[in-house]
Amino acid sequence: MASDRFLRALRREPVDRTPVWFMRQAGRYLPEYRDLRGDRDILESIRRPEEAVEITLQPLRRMPVDAAIVFSDIVVPLVAVGLPVRIVQGRGPVLDQPIRDAAGVGRLRPLDPEADEPYVVDAIRLLVKELDVPLIGFAGAPFTLASYLIEGGPSRDHARTKALLWSEPALWNDLLERLVTIVVAHVGAQVQAGASAIQIFDSWVGALAPATYGSAVAPHMRRLFAAVGDLGVPVIHFGVGTGELLGAMAAAGGDAIGIDARVPLDAGWERIGGPSQRAVQGNLDPSALRAPWEVVEREALDVLARAGGRDGHVFNLGHGVLPDTPVATLQRLVDLVHERTERSAAS
Amino acid sequence: MASDRFLRALRREPVDRTPVWFMRQAGRYLPEYRDLRGDRDILESIRRPEEAVEITLQPLRRMPVDAAIVFSDIVVPLVAVGLPVRIVQGRGPVLDQPIRDAAGVGRLRPLDPEADEPYVVDAIRLLVKELDVPLIGFAGAPFTLASYLIEGGPSRDHARTKALLWSEPALWNDLLERLVTIVVAHVGAQVQAGASAIQIFDSWVGALAPATYGSAVAPHMRRLFAAVGDLGVPVIHFGVGTGELLGAMAAAGGDAIGIDARVPLDAGWERIGGPSQRAVQGNLDPSALRAPWEVVEREALDVLARAGGRDGHVFNLGHGVLPDTPVATLQRLVDLVHERTERSAAS
Repeated sequence: MASDRFLRALRREPVDRTPVWFMRQAGRYLPEYRDLRGDRDILESIRRPEEAVEITLQPLRRMPVDAAIVFSDIVVPLVAVGLPVRIVQGRGPVLDQPIRDAAGVGRLRPLDPEADEPYVVDAIRLLVKELDVPLIGFAGAPFTLASYLIEGGPSRDHARTKALLWSEPALWNDLLERLVTIVVAHVGAQVQAGASAIQIFDSWVGALAPATYGSAVAPHMRRLFAAVGDLGVPVIHFGVGTGELLGAMAAAGGDAIGIDARVPLDAGWERIGGPSQRAVQGNLDPSALRAPWEVVEREALDVLARAGGRDGHVFNLGHGVLPDTPVATLQRLVDLVHERTERSAAS
Repeated sequence: MASDRFLRALRREPVDRTPVWFMRQAGRYLPEYRDLRGDRDILESIRRPEEAVEITLQPLRRMPVDAAIVFSDIVVPLVAVGLPVRIVQGRGPVLDQPIRDAAGVGRLRPLDPEADEPYVVDAIRLLVKELDVPLIGFAGAPFTLASYLIEGGPSRDHARTKALLWSEPALWNDLLERLVTIVVAHVGAQVQAGASAIQIFDSWVGALAPATYGSAVAPHMRRLFAAVGDLGVPVIHFGVGTGELLGAMAAAGGDAIGIDARVPLDAGWERIGGPSQRAVQGNLDPSALRAPWEVVEREALDVLARAGGRDGHVFNLGHGVLPDTPVATLQRLVDLVHERTERSAAS
């Protein structure tokens, strides 16, 4: 049952223990990750299936998390269709010539995963042979991808993105439709290769007010979730700073909704319709993991108390693991969640 | 009546038109500002009262905003007590040796405004002679100032700040108490010199969950507002990403609460107790001002509709004016707000 705890929770079925995994569990906080990657371009590591497999497996050797997430990046399918996106260490995805007009949008051709990004499919095929927990595939959501393309890099206020969606709705819709097509192909290939759940990262959509989300983003997300839903695996819909958007995000789609650390888990769960409607994932503050163990324990137990042992909770952080998080803290946290949520054998 | 529209709105009294001003109205989007400042260090410009006066007045010559805000920066009182904070263009406040221990915190001595920052007081004294609208003085809130000091610069996740407040509550409380003392002195001197309203910028406090805000920040904010309230001028309490915190912020203090662009104005107003309890300031998305006029108009009218002509609304953006905002757009926006909110002479 340990092996399907995660998928059962996403389907809101009873579990023996609350499942736990971490966004960015494969990554920078692990010394063996830093040793393996060195200074190499992260996209180069992703393009080597054996290396992506090894990095995906590293956290699983350290702690009994209930899911693996394939080592990749949300810009991978954009690079695969020919966009010159680079990932600059300490900064993030960068595009020297941002996309802000019809000619730029026209460069987003459909993705053929087997031809354009065979390494993604290969890594997943190799991984599912090795794993005894479910493998999560993932993609960026159209708004979040569009923001990188339009801003040319990470942005605090996403001002150009918002100005474009307000100024040129036809161009915006063309861009988002193309991104939906790419994302659906990218996700479909991952499921076909063996991923048994999908997370859609709309990390920066919290920059939008509800009305703007409703008019400029939600219709595309509904199309995306309709297509991804046909794949037959549970889907997690994640964002940060989304307190005002949770209801609209749940209405757009997703079996589980990610709740960031700003929103108390029980309040967030209510906003997405409660445990009878959606599963919930979250939501310990990643910064808490740099504090002493007593603090981590207190904050984690608060999350568990707010989940209240109800079916449909996947324990996670509110966002990705921060680079200098102690490995020992994550290990103790996995054990804490499992120990404190053990259900009687009766269920 | 035009001259006290702003103060009347903050006191929730009837006004002839809804008052409007803009955060960062004195600044980078104005060519005359760029000409005057050139490449000079912004702190140097602030230290020259005549230059600060001129920059404060520039936007008022362009458009009939209902308040001026003294040209300064939230780190000014920190520099004035001897902390080596620099402002790096395009990045923000930077401290090469961040404050993370008792020795660092010990460097925050009390502020003596007349001796430590005479230019602040001088600029305000000069300004009130020139102005026919109220002058807003301001300060950063302790959390936001502490974040710069602890992180050593602007931060996306404020991880070290949160880790410190969780790990070392005694040190955190010492730091925030010292910051409250500095802020109260800084604000008091501005009021004594002639400022007729105060805005407290807790710009980054939205990074905290409500429980953390309640335990680590709210007690200090209550002390701050108790002291600032004694000065006898209305106080605006502002933050960004504060959707979950608005009720707690209002409970901590402030005659008006700033609502950022993520929260619909009417929903935000309700969270702070409604028009019978607090005035509200906001909340057009600054990014909208880069879009064509039809978009600006539609979004601005939406804000006005949500305010519903009720007493206690100060029109503003949800955050500061972005650098490449067209001056003409701001000018038309001021006129639009004034025209569309004209009340009958009866009131």
